[in-house]
Amino acid sequence: MFKATLETLVKTTPGAVGAVLMGFDAIPIEQYYVQIDDVDLQLFAIEYTNVVKEIRKTAEILGTGDFQEVTIKSAGFHVVIRAVTDDYFLALTLHHDGNLGKGRFHMRRELATLRQALI
Amino acid sequence: MFKATLETLVKTTPGAVGAVLMGFDAIPIEQYYVQIDDVDLQLFAIEYTNVVKEIRKTAEILGTGDFQEVTIKSAGFHVVIRAVTDDYFLALTLHHDGNLGKGRFHMRRELATLRQALI
Repeated sequence: MFKATLETLVKTTPGAVGAVLMGFDAIPIEQYYVQIDDVDLQLFAIEYTNVVKEIRKTAEILGTGDFQEVTIKSAGFHVVIRAVTDDYFLALTLHHDGNLGKGRFHMRRELATLRQALI
Repeated sequence: MFKATLETLVKTTPGAVGAVLMGFDAIPIEQYYVQIDDVDLQLFAIEYTNVVKEIRKTAEILGTGDFQEVTIKSAGFHVVIRAVTDDYFLALTLHHDGNLGKGRFHMRRELATLRQALI
């Protein structure tokens, strides 16, 4: 079920190259990747878990409320990471010229279904 | 000059509460804050520098090109952080219901001027 959701997310978002449903402990539940040269998308997911952990820690220190979503833009790729439950997040990676807005829209639409399946 | 730019950025962005021009070493050049209860916006800037450092390190490890921009949404506040030069970034903090899109637009418009002044 998760695999199909991730595959649909990637295939319906122009420029998307991978999606992963992952624990905040850096252990993935499921992932779907398009093969691209010179980029290790598995490593991507693991490295970005460190970023998300840092953001959650920061939100806790500052008392700004629960972490919800982060969008990171670098010259080559854009990544959207969305908290699904307290334990899991959904990450979508796109080429820098991909349709980030559409990707985020699709992600949000899947949230309720994913949450239901995760608890 | 920086102070006026930051003040304009905050005042023309609905829901904005603070802006800071800061080094990646967590030392601010200039900042402008609206007084709000229970939130230490100076601490905000310093804590988010750690997040940005983690993101830059990740971009380097993954070879995804230079870090450009990150948007972090938590339940209470949204933060947009934009690299200005290799050494400095601009951060704008808004209430969660502020106009993030307008804030980002204003930030991008100021980039060239800030860069000129920083080099």
